[in-house]
Amino acid sequence: MANSPSGESVTERIVRVLETFDADRTVQTATEISRRAGLPSSTGHRMVADLLECGLLERDEDQRVRLGMRLWELALRGSHALRLRQAALPLMERVQARLREHTQLAVLENDETLFVERLSHPHAGANITRIAGRLPLHASSSGLVLLAHGPEELRERILAGPLDAVAPGTETDPARLRRDLARIRREGVVVAPGSVESVSTGVAVPIREGRGPVIAALSVVLPRDAPTGLAVEELRAAAARISATMGTHRPQAPGGHRDTRAS
Amino acid sequence: MANSPSGESVTERIVRVLETFDADRTVQTATEISRRAGLPSSTGHRMVADLLECGLLERDEDQRVRLGMRLWELALRGSHALRLRQAALPLMERVQARLREHTQLAVLENDETLFVERLSHPHAGANITRIAGRLPLHASSSGLVLLAHGPEELRERILAGPLDAVAPGTETDPARLRRDLARIRREGVVVAPGSVESVSTGVAVPIREGRGPVIAALSVVLPRDAPTGLAVEELRAAAARISATMGTHRPQAPGGHRDTRAS
Repeated sequence: MANSPSGESVTERIVRVLETFDADRTVQTATEISRRAGLPSSTGHRMVADLLECGLLERDEDQRVRLGMRLWELALRGSHALRLRQAALPLMERVQARLREHTQLAVLENDETLFVERLSHPHAGANITRIAGRLPLHASSSGLVLLAHGPEELRERILAGPLDAVAPGTETDPARLRRDLARIRREGVVVAPGSVESVSTGVAVPIREGRGPVIAALSVVLPRDAPTGLAVEELRAAAARISATMGTHRPQAPGGHRDTRAS
Repeated sequence: MANSPSGESVTERIVRVLETFDADRTVQTATEISRRAGLPSSTGHRMVADLLECGLLERDEDQRVRLGMRLWELALRGSHALRLRQAALPLMERVQARLREHTQLAVLENDETLFVERLSHPHAGANITRIAGRLPLHASSSGLVLLAHGPEELRERILAGPLDAVAPGTETDPARLRRDLARIRREGVVVAPGSVESVSTGVAVPIREGRGPVIAALSVVLPRDAPTGLAVEELRAAAARISATMGTHRPQAPGGHRDTRAS
């Protein structure tokens, strides 16, 4: 609908505008946005004006442009990610209080690992992930859990490569990765030393919708040579409780529509 | 740009589609979305197809439509709300651990109180707020903080009414509300019994950008007749630390653009 001469829809161009913002670039001018989105200046400025009008973008006190609180609200209030995150957060806090290390929640999104929540401990070590940040599926303990339990078609596609190394410890050999994934499905846990950062070991377990499909991964990032036994135990206990919550029907508000996905 | 015959932009129509989702309605059919967005069926179906294509919407396993993880990612990863929330969360956890009551973070958004984070305690009492939920500015302790410290033009507009009661304890008299707001600015804290729910008392304090303007409110919800001294003390200590964090320049990633708003 309302396609440009290039055949691109207005929606696609809006996404390109929103994509120019990230954790290191939260404020921009309309000119910068146009350039980074690859849009002609007049088109870019008109789109920014339009998005400001709707509140999806907003101006800061210096008249520069940032993502609007309205966008945040629209994205979250009806989001199934919010339900997962709400179910997981109290248990993540418990894991973090016991282990005092970075604790993370990730989902599969468009063939990558998307981190939807992260609790950081001030005394914990290095960790490059951040909320709404991504990593390749084969290069983090969370991603390996999601890949091991994901659709076979996805697994074959990823195994077909290319499998780039994020760190020296990233498994990039398809045959070995295939064996790793089979073991992860059997054992229900990943311990991945140095797969994202040389100095760290990721430990991750699957979260299910009740007893159903795997919908997320819960992980902690430990120093490379730390013992992993307690982390595995804590993560398994937390994941079991989050899975149970996600398997129950959501509470109904008056007039609300039942979410019948959970079984 | 690309306006419909009604003069409405495609962006406005996208917002209307996204607005049909909320906490009680996380999955819908394209027909339901069209009807609730007030769009002709063919237009609605085309827009849903377009939004699915871009990942802003996605299909669940029953082929119904829900908000896309991509929307969530775009809204969060470059959001200044995320920075506030990241600064506030560790302190909110501390407040919650000590008080064992609902702990909330709210900002001013389009003349209303928007709750951007909430930690709930399993044994805490009633609380109708939720993440990405809204309340009128005059009807919660958080809103009163934001209104007291907000622009004078906004305050006069809200005082001009109408001031609807959310609960029997909501202050709806403009003269008394004006005096309350002046006192809140002097004392730096709100204790609002029954302003949202008869059984609860909200306690809120302002969060500043360093020593600069008020950017958020931190609050707890106590049982109506509970003592408030410890809550005020904990909230003030937490808010001071969050304000200090928000007043510092954000850490720079290589090649990142400095956020010069903080001073």
